[in-house]
Amino acid sequence: MKTNATALDRRDFIKKSSFLPFGLNGMWLMSQARFDAHSVSADNINIFGHREGFSPQIGILVSMLDWMRAEILLPIQGLSMEDLDYLLDESANSIGSMLLHLAATERFYQLHTFENKKWGHWDKTDKDEWSIASSLGAKARQSIKGNDLDFYLDKLKTVRENTMKELADRDDDWLMKVDPHWYWGPTNNYCKWFHVCEHESNHGGQIKFLVNRLPKGLTKSSMD
Amino acid sequence: MKTNATALDRRDFIKKSSFLPFGLNGMWLMSQARFDAHSVSADNINIFGHREGFSPQIGILVSMLDWMRAEILLPIQGLSMEDLDYLLDESANSIGSMLLHLAATERFYQLHTFENKKWGHWDKTDKDEWSIASSLGAKARQSIKGNDLDFYLDKLKTVRENTMKELADRDDDWLMKVDPHWYWGPTNNYCKWFHVCEHESNHGGQIKFLVNRLPKGLTKSSMD
Repeated sequence: MKTNATALDRRDFIKKSSFLPFGLNGMWLMSQARFDAHSVSADNINIFGHREGFSPQIGILVSMLDWMRAEILLPIQGLSMEDLDYLLDESANSIGSMLLHLAATERFYQLHTFENKKWGHWDKTDKDEWSIASSLGAKARQSIKGNDLDFYLDKLKTVRENTMKELADRDDDWLMKVDPHWYWGPTNNYCKWFHVCEHESNHGGQIKFLVNRLPKGLTKSSMD
Repeated sequence: MKTNATALDRRDFIKKSSFLPFGLNGMWLMSQARFDAHSVSADNINIFGHREGFSPQIGILVSMLDWMRAEILLPIQGLSMEDLDYLLDESANSIGSMLLHLAATERFYQLHTFENKKWGHWDKTDKDEWSIASSLGAKARQSIKGNDLDFYLDKLKTVRENTMKELADRDDDWLMKVDPHWYWGPTNNYCKWFHVCEHESNHGGQIKFLVNRLPKGLTKSSMD
């Protein structure tokens, strides 16, 4: 009961907080967020700038990646397996599948920008692990289910740790390097990784939309 | 018929493009996007970096603001007044109200960060124009309706032009300046404006979710 009350109170608080600058409701609760602060302390997550172990401009990108990740993890705290598997309609993606989609997108951008693999030309291991989550849709609805929240949080955390490790090994010249053959036209690594970052917000908005429409009676898992 | 076909073909193409890196489908169509490229040409919108008339770090922020704006405007091309007013359920926000919400959020962050107004302490003119769109919810469902796409595009464009004008008058020291009293805890202007930027992606994700669920039979307005 206590757990249910906590989850419901939080959702109710978030609903009532619309008068606040967007995101404040979430950021107020950040201390509760289950995210891994690779290079950031609670003191400076909202102060974008230098991050220990990263080049100056990559430190700005890392500031954004950390801030964005904390923000999107807040609405999913305490969600149960049933919540994570819930499909609003026949063409909807579940919250769980979108969380795995974010990890898959980040993994593919790692392979593309860190290992210089042409988009889609993945090794079998990565293709087998990430392709369905990357594409979402029918196959994802069929196969991405039955996992608890920690499953998705661990996938996101593991992939992000590799992103941070690889970014720490690179410099601002790499971040600004332009790929002349990218689908969008000439594109630098900064733009590609900003997209990975804002893409979390894109699905974060959809996840919040779904969290507010979860059927009543679904039990919330413990937030501990 | 030609107009309907164009809109439907575009939506069909976007649905079929899920194998592409997220956003590619949109960025491929960017040349069609109805956005105002304040400081960017089609040649460098995907190359984040220097932007003429802006300090170095503010140029990076402007790169992001321009890229994000182009991305969120793509799915709404050709939407009719009926599409923009459509409510998926009794607690949903319309696409139109979310577009005005983005303009309202940006306007309030302008007043807060450029004019040093405490959040919520707005002049009557701004409060009257933007408060309902900023809060969304019931009042927005009641009053934000009956506008065509150009109404929302013009609001977004006008507010964004002021953002660019104000950013051009500032330097990187201002961007890094920390507000020790912000609700989230100490926060610099870079973090606040990154939030304005990613907030567009948050609602952009919700808008795409709704665009894919618009009732059949709603007529699409001309994309010309």
